[in-house]
Amino acid sequence: MPETVTTHASMRALTEDADRAYELDRQHVFHSWSAQELINPLVITRAEGSYVWDGQGRKLLDFTSQLVYTNLGHGHPRIVEAIQEQAAALCTVAPQYANGTRSEAARLIASHTPGDLNRVFFTNGGADANEHAIRMARLHTGKHKVLSTYRSYHGGTQLAINVTGDPRRWPNDTGSTGNVHFFGPFLYRSPFHSTTEQEERERALDHLEQVIALEGPSTIAAVILESIPGTAGIMIPPPGYLRGVRELCDKHGIVFIADEVMSGFGRSGEWFAIEHAGVVPDLLTFAKGVNSGYVPLGGVAISDAIFQSFAKRPYPGGLTYSGHPLACAAAVASIEVMEAERIVEHSAALGEEVFGPSLRSLAERHQWIGEVRGVGAFWAIELVADRETREPLAPYGGSSPEMGAVIAATMANGVLPFANFNRIHAVPPINISAEEAGEGIRALDAALGEARAAVASVTG
Amino acid sequence: MPETVTTHASMRALTEDADRAYELDRQHVFHSWSAQELINPLVITRAEGSYVWDGQGRKLLDFTSQLVYTNLGHGHPRIVEAIQEQAAALCTVAPQYANGTRSEAARLIASHTPGDLNRVFFTNGGADANEHAIRMARLHTGKHKVLSTYRSYHGGTQLAINVTGDPRRWPNDTGSTGNVHFFGPFLYRSPFHSTTEQEERERALDHLEQVIALEGPSTIAAVILESIPGTAGIMIPPPGYLRGVRELCDKHGIVFIADEVMSGFGRSGEWFAIEHAGVVPDLLTFAKGVNSGYVPLGGVAISDAIFQSFAKRPYPGGLTYSGHPLACAAAVASIEVMEAERIVEHSAALGEEVFGPSLRSLAERHQWIGEVRGVGAFWAIELVADRETREPLAPYGGSSPEMGAVIAATMANGVLPFANFNRIHAVPPINISAEEAGEGIRALDAALGEARAAVASVTG
Repeated sequence: MPETVTTHASMRALTEDADRAYELDRQHVFHSWSAQELINPLVITRAEGSYVWDGQGRKLLDFTSQLVYTNLGHGHPRIVEAIQEQAAALCTVAPQYANGTRSEAARLIASHTPGDLNRVFFTNGGADANEHAIRMARLHTGKHKVLSTYRSYHGGTQLAINVTGDPRRWPNDTGSTGNVHFFGPFLYRSPFHSTTEQEERERALDHLEQVIALEGPSTIAAVILESIPGTAGIMIPPPGYLRGVRELCDKHGIVFIADEVMSGFGRSGEWFAIEHAGVVPDLLTFAKGVNSGYVPLGGVAISDAIFQSFAKRPYPGGLTYSGHPLACAAAVASIEVMEAERIVEHSAALGEEVFGPSLRSLAERHQWIGEVRGVGAFWAIELVADRETREPLAPYGGSSPEMGAVIAATMANGVLPFANFNRIHAVPPINISAEEAGEGIRALDAALGEARAAVASVTG
Repeated sequence: MPETVTTHASMRALTEDADRAYELDRQHVFHSWSAQELINPLVITRAEGSYVWDGQGRKLLDFTSQLVYTNLGHGHPRIVEAIQEQAAALCTVAPQYANGTRSEAARLIASHTPGDLNRVFFTNGGADANEHAIRMARLHTGKHKVLSTYRSYHGGTQLAINVTGDPRRWPNDTGSTGNVHFFGPFLYRSPFHSTTEQEERERALDHLEQVIALEGPSTIAAVILESIPGTAGIMIPPPGYLRGVRELCDKHGIVFIADEVMSGFGRSGEWFAIEHAGVVPDLLTFAKGVNSGYVPLGGVAISDAIFQSFAKRPYPGGLTYSGHPLACAAAVASIEVMEAERIVEHSAALGEEVFGPSLRSLAERHQWIGEVRGVGAFWAIELVADRETREPLAPYGGSSPEMGAVIAATMANGVLPFANFNRIHAVPPINISAEEAGEGIRALDAALGEARAAVASVTG
């Protein structure tokens, strides 16, 4: 039950509103990544901090940050106030003008990006940020190919989805040239038959070096990587890997693009996940956590060298809402909150003190857990049918009754889970309290037991 | 001078803020479509209704609607209030959920789109709307090629810019397949050597029919057209043209995509410009006017037949901020204002009673004006060096001292002009008063005279 007192009358009004929201949704809203008549969307009527409420007034702990973007939770008063004030003052100006709120957002972002990533090109989200980063790399180098990893996600527009390495690319794998996929490090399911982190790093770098040599260094504009691959499985790269990628890029005149759309702005316990590696990319893309998605915003942070490429010749790209003041006001407030409340340090501590120990203890108790891995507020639980063979609990790109049971039991226990194929991710708001995080982990613990029992009772 | 009383102290504070906005912009903001060190962005500090104020407190009549998107002007109190209320209630939910504000926005949009365009897929802007519309068309038809016109703009992401037919495509004309460009009707500079509207319509349709036949109808997924091409020159299609395109598409199993990103939501004096032709497209893309750009929002309105294509199989596309509640709240308020204040009728009347007569009278007085054309609050003034040869006053894709002089004189006369190559567009907020529209036209009138005199004094 929600903590707020709900009268019968207001409960009925809520339910009627939710019913109408659902009915109109089914009549008029076309949903992302879905077979439109095979979905049954949960109505969300209210949200506060780390919680959301559905159409029946049920309170759910948001262990997803929606799509891993409400980093400061729902309804943060300082961000809400900043949006309200900016809305009253000036909602929007076109990108060719200068505006104080946009300038301040760019300054604050550049004050946290590593190295000389001093300029910010604002977009509406992560997909167009990656599209523009690739364009900058192509024009800066005069080369065309883009190398990206299998098991990655870089966005839904045509170029971004073709750079992506997950099944959502498959139906879109047409009409885009110069996209080459290679294998990133993933020790638990090593593409290189490695058995240690050091071996995985060495073999993954050797593999990339071979791909570069055989594709032709003179043809490659960019390597684009999620600093920590997100939806694909939160595979923390082994120490030294990103530094090795940086060196290969330097050696061959290739632009290194770090996709920090999901991993950036404190998610990993650093402002940007690439800081764990002590490496500076040439371009860094962001969205989501920059303003907790309160207003759509993304962007590209640009090194001095690439900026210089477009100092005297025009950058041939743009968009109507680039540097939208309302979105930038939310970014300014979000970053100020993160600084004032030491949110990045909190995220790091959550990983070390709460998620790491608790999830590893879960793994000891649940046979289905093959591995837990993560950092900060960015954790994956890899579920397997068999710990020896590591056979996933659902096939790559698919689902299974077992995964369905885990998801249903987690929700029944009051927690909204992030699920992808055979994984559950624990990716709540990064300002979640240790107590709330513990509540979510206990619900997952119970759900894993209940789901296994339920599946056993059906198949047994 | 601004109408508001400005004390010396507040004037100094304003200037200091503007100076800081400018300085930080130059240090940290990377601008759309620009050589970064060759631009000198105007600082916009304030905006209200049809006016904006720059860093020196200078008040300018916004004859551009920024980039033709603030259809209801700046700071409309009902939209601002809707944003503030939604921000307090619930800024964002992920696209897989249902939400009352998103549902209502979809219902309102579908209530105004023509025919059976009953479903709405929400995006962040016009570029991704067009990218997704093309994806839907390709998957619906199982075909690949997309036909679009020269002299068009469809967005800045990689696929959208390659479908575009303007010089911004040139540096990006790589890595995208299946893009075919044909000629749309444009009587003033007829690609078909026509001399009448009827001839232009017949020849343009004959041309398209030949292109379809020779590209191969079995290879063509979609024809995408701006119902009235916008930035490319506001070329009103001759009567019957769009109906002819509709018939060719039907005959050959081709999806007809109407790009209404700029022309939609009342700009042309109808809710959607394609209604002038009495034609229903299969997909209709929108952005800008849907919520006057107060919060980034775009989308695709989808016919029943294409919806059915994705009823049982997944639509392989999506984005984190699809159907963002804050953006949808602004859309709900905008559409309600447009209905309540009869804004579309006002836009139509502006065209018939103000812009049409006044701009035609301007054309009689100024040798540089080759043609004025438009409808609603959507007008182009085509400037030529020579009325006989119709030599443009600036080359295609470029500028000229003459155009520079016109732009500078218009701004000196207190009006922010929309300029593209050899054209000045009169595209103010569509709720502008007749008096304000008259003020802008008088400023243009004076500016044309002053610019011609200034250029003559230099060259003479």
